[in-house]
Amino acid sequence: MKKWLLSAAILASFSAQADEGMWQPYQLPAMADELKAKGLEIDAKSISKLTEFPMNAVISLGGCTASFVSPKGLVVTNHHCAYGSIQYNSTPEKNLLKEGFLAKTYAEELPATPGSRIYVTEAVTDVTDRVKSGQMNKVGNEFYKGIEQQEKALVAECEAEDGYRCKVYSFHGGLEYYLVKQMEIRDVRLTYNPAGSVGKYGGDIDNWMWPRHTGDYSFYRAYVGKDGKPADFSKDNVPYEPKSFLKVSAKGVSDGDFVMVAGYPGRTNRYRTANEVENQFEWAYPEGKVLRERLIEIIKETAPEGSDERIKYESAIAGLANYAKNFTSMIEFYGKSTMLDDRKALELKLSQWIKADSKRKSQYGEVLAQLDKLIKQSQQQQERDLIMSYMGYSSMMSTAERLYRLANEKTLADMDREPGYQERDMTRFTSGMERIERRYAASVDKAMLLDLMSRYAALPQADRLPAFDKAFAIGKSADSAKLSKTLDKMYAKTELSDKAVRLAWMDKSVAEFKKSKDPFIQYAVSTYDERMKQEKARKQLAGDLMKVRPQYMDAIIAYNKELGKPVYADANSSLRVTVGNVKGYSPQDGLVAVPFTRLEGILAKDTGADPFDAPAKQLELIKNKQYGDYYVKSLDSVPVNFLSTLDTTGGNSGSPTLNGRAELVGLLFDGVYESIIGDWGYDPQTNRSIQVDSRYMLWVMKYLDNAENLLEEMEIVH
Amino acid sequence: MKKWLLSAAILASFSAQADEGMWQPYQLPAMADELKAKGLEIDAKSISKLTEFPMNAVISLGGCTASFVSPKGLVVTNHHCAYGSIQYNSTPEKNLLKEGFLAKTYAEELPATPGSRIYVTEAVTDVTDRVKSGQMNKVGNEFYKGIEQQEKALVAECEAEDGYRCKVYSFHGGLEYYLVKQMEIRDVRLTYNPAGSVGKYGGDIDNWMWPRHTGDYSFYRAYVGKDGKPADFSKDNVPYEPKSFLKVSAKGVSDGDFVMVAGYPGRTNRYRTANEVENQFEWAYPEGKVLRERLIEIIKETAPEGSDERIKYESAIAGLANYAKNFTSMIEFYGKSTMLDDRKALELKLSQWIKADSKRKSQYGEVLAQLDKLIKQSQQQQERDLIMSYMGYSSMMSTAERLYRLANEKTLADMDREPGYQERDMTRFTSGMERIERRYAASVDKAMLLDLMSRYAALPQADRLPAFDKAFAIGKSADSAKLSKTLDKMYAKTELSDKAVRLAWMDKSVAEFKKSKDPFIQYAVSTYDERMKQEKARKQLAGDLMKVRPQYMDAIIAYNKELGKPVYADANSSLRVTVGNVKGYSPQDGLVAVPFTRLEGILAKDTGADPFDAPAKQLELIKNKQYGDYYVKSLDSVPVNFLSTLDTTGGNSGSPTLNGRAELVGLLFDGVYESIIGDWGYDPQTNRSIQVDSRYMLWVMKYLDNAENLLEEMEIVH
Repeated sequence: MKKWLLSAAILASFSAQADEGMWQPYQLPAMADELKAKGLEIDAKSISKLTEFPMNAVISLGGCTASFVSPKGLVVTNHHCAYGSIQYNSTPEKNLLKEGFLAKTYAEELPATPGSRIYVTEAVTDVTDRVKSGQMNKVGNEFYKGIEQQEKALVAECEAEDGYRCKVYSFHGGLEYYLVKQMEIRDVRLTYNPAGSVGKYGGDIDNWMWPRHTGDYSFYRAYVGKDGKPADFSKDNVPYEPKSFLKVSAKGVSDGDFVMVAGYPGRTNRYRTANEVENQFEWAYPEGKVLRERLIEIIKETAPEGSDERIKYESAIAGLANYAKNFTSMIEFYGKSTMLDDRKALELKLSQWIKADSKRKSQYGEVLAQLDKLIKQSQQQQERDLIMSYMGYSSMMSTAERLYRLANEKTLADMDREPGYQERDMTRFTSGMERIERRYAASVDKAMLLDLMSRYAALPQADRLPAFDKAFAIGKSADSAKLSKTLDKMYAKTELSDKAVRLAWMDKSVAEFKKSKDPFIQYAVSTYDERMKQEKARKQLAGDLMKVRPQYMDAIIAYNKELGKPVYADANSSLRVTVGNVKGYSPQDGLVAVPFTRLEGILAKDTGADPFDAPAKQLELIKNKQYGDYYVKSLDSVPVNFLSTLDTTGGNSGSPTLNGRAELVGLLFDGVYESIIGDWGYDPQTNRSIQVDSRYMLWVMKYLDNAENLLEEMEIVH
Repeated sequence: MKKWLLSAAILASFSAQADEGMWQPYQLPAMADELKAKGLEIDAKSISKLTEFPMNAVISLGGCTASFVSPKGLVVTNHHCAYGSIQYNSTPEKNLLKEGFLAKTYAEELPATPGSRIYVTEAVTDVTDRVKSGQMNKVGNEFYKGIEQQEKALVAECEAEDGYRCKVYSFHGGLEYYLVKQMEIRDVRLTYNPAGSVGKYGGDIDNWMWPRHTGDYSFYRAYVGKDGKPADFSKDNVPYEPKSFLKVSAKGVSDGDFVMVAGYPGRTNRYRTANEVENQFEWAYPEGKVLRERLIEIIKETAPEGSDERIKYESAIAGLANYAKNFTSMIEFYGKSTMLDDRKALELKLSQWIKADSKRKSQYGEVLAQLDKLIKQSQQQQERDLIMSYMGYSSMMSTAERLYRLANEKTLADMDREPGYQERDMTRFTSGMERIERRYAASVDKAMLLDLMSRYAALPQADRLPAFDKAFAIGKSADSAKLSKTLDKMYAKTELSDKAVRLAWMDKSVAEFKKSKDPFIQYAVSTYDERMKQEKARKQLAGDLMKVRPQYMDAIIAYNKELGKPVYADANSSLRVTVGNVKGYSPQDGLVAVPFTRLEGILAKDTGADPFDAPAKQLELIKNKQYGDYYVKSLDSVPVNFLSTLDTTGGNSGSPTLNGRAELVGLLFDGVYESIIGDWGYDPQTNRSIQVDSRYMLWVMKYLDNAENLLEEMEIVH
């Protein structure tokens, strides 16, 4: 399912059943009996302790999950999570994406892509009272800013200790706040990745699909200074020695076995209102799909297959296509589902429950109506907002906006700045500015912006923003030819495509920006006040929502408590644990997806053409039935990928899938097509996660890639 | 898999294994023990007797199979086999295809489409000696004509009895000949068909596919004169009373149950040589696919959706698409298979076996080389031959050719005429000439012919036919614009689109044709000699093949006899029996196709748009779980379609699928996509036939269509 990209948010399925639930670790001890019955062999309490095995071996890459698998800081994650680093180290002469890469010694390891980080969660603290303290009388933008201010203070305090990154996560829409403290390892190196024809076998065609035969794994190594503390890249750094690491199982799992995943799921929308569901599925997803598909077409037209430009945009195409497919599935399965009716029925039940008791009535009586009013308000300019959010795909436009914003934020005290523009953000900001070249071609950037700008220009004038219209000389009605000429001039003249120029702007003042002749800088300056006004209006609304939604969630939690059901919070990129079983499903009447695929499936799929072009040596091994140590009799082969009922989503990519003894039996890397809509409601019949089987990973490492050095370094359980 | 259309022929898998084999009924008693062990409860001998139950209840519609299911001549077959008759009786006001049709009384029944026949096989006689008598010294065209002459004499003798249709079938490429005598019922009426959204649910999208939810059944009734003998349509005719009829099972079958099918499979190519296989899969199928897909495009461009022309060509599109899909599957699975290597290995084994014995060597030593030489010869002009064979899609061209051929044949004594032009063929010939209007539009006919003619014109001049070039003013190189003008004029002037004109030409002399100003008649006349020359050359080769291929098959049979294996002949549209089991399969690693689909699958597939637009009442019944009498506990629903290992092909459509007691448990109507290549070799892993479950048919009849009158008429076994 690839790295979690932004996806418009929004639902609710009132409470956990079966294997549903992305639990905060602290919730697990209360479920100990249930977990034991399911197959957990280690103490449920141990999973709740973040600084103990196995949880301290589970780490975040920021967007993906990973885990330590050796005492020397060896990290395993998905191939698609390490993709940027593999691409970064590839050249036409030595294409690591294509050929794979194996460092036989520490010295052969390669630096990961700039800005790569490994985050080791060390503490999660409930800071709800502290965050809300003194804020609850505020409303709207004031409340929003007040909460943000409290969060920033907590973060600053937490980050006072060197080498740490801290963040406050909001749960249940703002009902609870937790401060997460993570050690931030800054020297990350690429140790090993299989060939692309193993690691992304099936490519975009098989993305979200079952049956699957993807060896979606790669290895990093974490380095720290000689003092054991996080440090910038240096030859003198040494491999980090984690407090614990996961053993890798060579025995694997069987159909029905207990499995669990610890990881960092990005976002789910299981408690959204019926109105939010309806708007998202009947408006936002269809519109988003149209925009994504159009942008893909534009890239393909402007940067033909084989061109240098195309290489730069492969990653953008993949990202756009990934969610275009996601939205398509959302729309398809929503159409077949009773989700909206179910949601309405649940809301009715909740309302009745609230009305049935005078205390509840006074506490929650108005909440749903208030919430829906705010939601309606947020949808008023959604067409314009959506188009403008996709303009972020134009690097020139977003770069100019961000640089000028930085100049403005810098006039404020660090603690008063917008998150993302504080001193603590500057390393990431800089590497973001540095990276643009690799993913930018003026022709494509312009073509995408022209399409989006034409859509914007076609909106009724009342919905448009005067300063914006002026900046692009948009008149009463849309005129694409004229717009195209305007953009041509802007792209011809701008110097923001030059890395040095961009970096230089990072240090310039607001006054210098105002004097600039660079057309994109001029755009950013002339529209700044209006964009800030829009942002303030959004925060005003967000602040109101942050007051009302927690009350709604409070009602849901109270309602479920009466039913004896625990409630898990929607995913928010914080550490969660989910439990389930190895299990197939029926994707359609008349068909059953069995839980394991086998090596032979690779032979059957292989066409010799990307993405079904397994290495010749691998095909040979399979033809000769060289299963080696990883032969499984019941399959008469080596398992490749397997299905589980685990409740996961984007961000969980790379998560270690563990057996009852917390041994690594697989790496989670995707969900099936039918479960994409699972972000809005878990269906035990069709919600399935897809894992790379540890036995396939070991088989490739041993027989195809000769990665004996790593096999020896890891602790493999037979 | 729809009605068997012509498909270039050709392979071999040396002998039957597992459920492979389309057996001639006379072969069955020798297999009695095996059949009993498999689950046959009735005496194997009874299946070999064509005039006894159950074989005398199995009938042919000419292209499809059917069966008697009541003492009053009620016939059940596939909806797609009765399609022409349903279409024939449909009007914009009363669209039986869309709405379905049920005659509540005999009087309400409707005449089937002109030319509809029911053939009841009464005798199959080995006439090998008689056919070959006096012919074996001839070669080439002489041999071909000699055999044809013998066959015609046998047919004439057999048809001396009124109401019968006879035909000599060649088995094993001419090793054996059998005379089949069938009673020909000429008054066929449409009794009942479900709505198109049941009967062809899934349409072309689901064609050849699993999972499947198609209610592909319809009912005819056979009528005869008051004397019980076949008669032309008359109000005074009475329902035919068959000697026996099949009981319909309301209990159905379960996974693993024994099933058998009796029917008229059209054509298989399981004993073709490696050269034939290679040419067919690497040249003929790819080329045929291109032509078919192009013709579909042309029809769609020329006759836009919703136009009157389009309605006339829906059936042509379906036929073209059906085999375009068939060829696509052939090419795909050939690419994945080792078929060619396997075939070569088998040929090598056969050669070694032949060489190992001097008697064998003298008898078969040269056969394979001779056969391959003839095959190569037949491929010499295959590109031209293929293009010209597709010109048969032009009604004007083929009509003119056939009419002028008739005039020429009529100058000969009836017994000397080409088969198809004898007096016995005239009813069929006439109804063919009458039917053209319903499937003809000048714009489409011309557009297709222009495309094919342009391809022909692009061939090297040496490969073209001078008279043909002259008729269409084709110069040294291709000139489509000029060709288009030529054709415009021809279509503007021809009167062959008028039914009366066509029928009038049936009675005209060669001299009258020669004087005609009709451009298509002129074409037929001016190219006649050259076309006859080509035909003679083809017969010359066919004659030689008819001498050599039987020797090759004789060697194969002798080789297998030594191994103790019986050999079945390739399908040739004659009555065969095949046995197997209800069984799923794995279409891909990681997926299993289970053997039954359920009513709920219709709900899941339904989009409300054709071809997934089940009747509202049906959807309501399913939503309300109104399974009625046909509920199956293990499925928690009513089964819709089921899979079996039965070895079948086109022509088997409509065949009754029988349980061990010869009760009808389903109607065969298709094979799965993976088994299309099965025509060239049966694979027990993937060869699966698809049946409508008798329980689904009965459920629709009872709860959706209220066909109580038919349910009462049939004998239903509970």
